[in-house]
Amino acid sequence: MKISHIEHLGIAVESIEKALPYFENVLGLKCYAVEEVADQKVKTAFLKVGEVKLELLEPTSPDSPVAKYLANGGKGIHHVAFAVEDGVAEALAECEGKEIRLIDKAPRKGAEGLQIAFLHPKSTCGILTELCEH
Amino acid sequence: MKISHIEHLGIAVESIEKALPYFENVLGLKCYAVEEVADQKVKTAFLKVGEVKLELLEPTSPDSPVAKYLANGGKGIHHVAFAVEDGVAEALAECEGKEIRLIDKAPRKGAEGLQIAFLHPKSTCGILTELCEH
Repeated sequence: MKISHIEHLGIAVESIEKALPYFENVLGLKCYAVEEVADQKVKTAFLKVGEVKLELLEPTSPDSPVAKYLANGGKGIHHVAFAVEDGVAEALAECEGKEIRLIDKAPRKGAEGLQIAFLHPKSTCGILTELCEH
Repeated sequence: MKISHIEHLGIAVESIEKALPYFENVLGLKCYAVEEVADQKVKTAFLKVGEVKLELLEPTSPDSPVAKYLANGGKGIHHVAFAVEDGVAEALAECEGKEIRLIDKAPRKGAEGLQIAFLHPKSTCGILTELCEH
C-alpha cells in the first residue's frame, strides 16, 4: 500500500455548533465546508491544518455509528483516514491478504465524493482506520 | 495562535515491537527513530506519513501516563500535537486568556528536543492536545 498523507482526522462531537468555537477561535483554523453524509447519519464540518483536514462529526440520528461511539464514552479522535495512491480496492485486497480485518469489503462513497473503506481497529492497533482516494 | 501543521499523532501501544509490523508491513511506513523519553516514562518510535509524524508510545513503567491510559481501556490515538509558529509560551498565554484548561503552565522539553505543552481534553473537545515548536 502506498500512502501519500493523512487525508483527515475524524473527530466525534455532540454538536458542531458548540465545538467550532474551539477550533476557530482558539486554534485559529477556519471551517470551509459543512456537509451531511446521509449514509453515515452525520453532519460534518471541515477545517484544514497543513495538508490534513479535521472532519468534525455530529450524529444526526441516535443510531448513527458516531452517536453510538459517543454514547459508549468515546471522545475526540474517532478515526484516521489515509490517502492511498494505489487505489482503495487494491489496498483492501492487500490488507485482506495480510489478515487485516476489514469493515468494508469494497470501496464506497464518503464525504467530499471520496472513495473510502474502513479497516477494523482490532487489526490496526486500536485505531479505526479509513483508506480513501479522490 | 498560528498553527502550521499537525506535528505528530501520539499513538499508545502496549509494545512497539508488536505494533511496528502493522505500520511498516501493512501501511508501508518506515520507522526512522526510536527514543526513550524518561520524563514521560515512554519509549517512542517515529514514522512519517506526509508532513505528519506518527509517534508510537510504549510505557516503560506502570506509572507512566500512557500505561494508565492503556489500563483504563484507552486505545489508539492518545494525543494530537500541533506545531505552533508563534511560540508555545505565547500560545499557552493565549489559551489561558480564552479559559482553556492547561496541563502545562509553561513549555517543557519533549521528544526530539521540541518545546512542548499540553492542553486538557476537557477544554479541547475531548482531544488531549499538545502544542509544540522546534
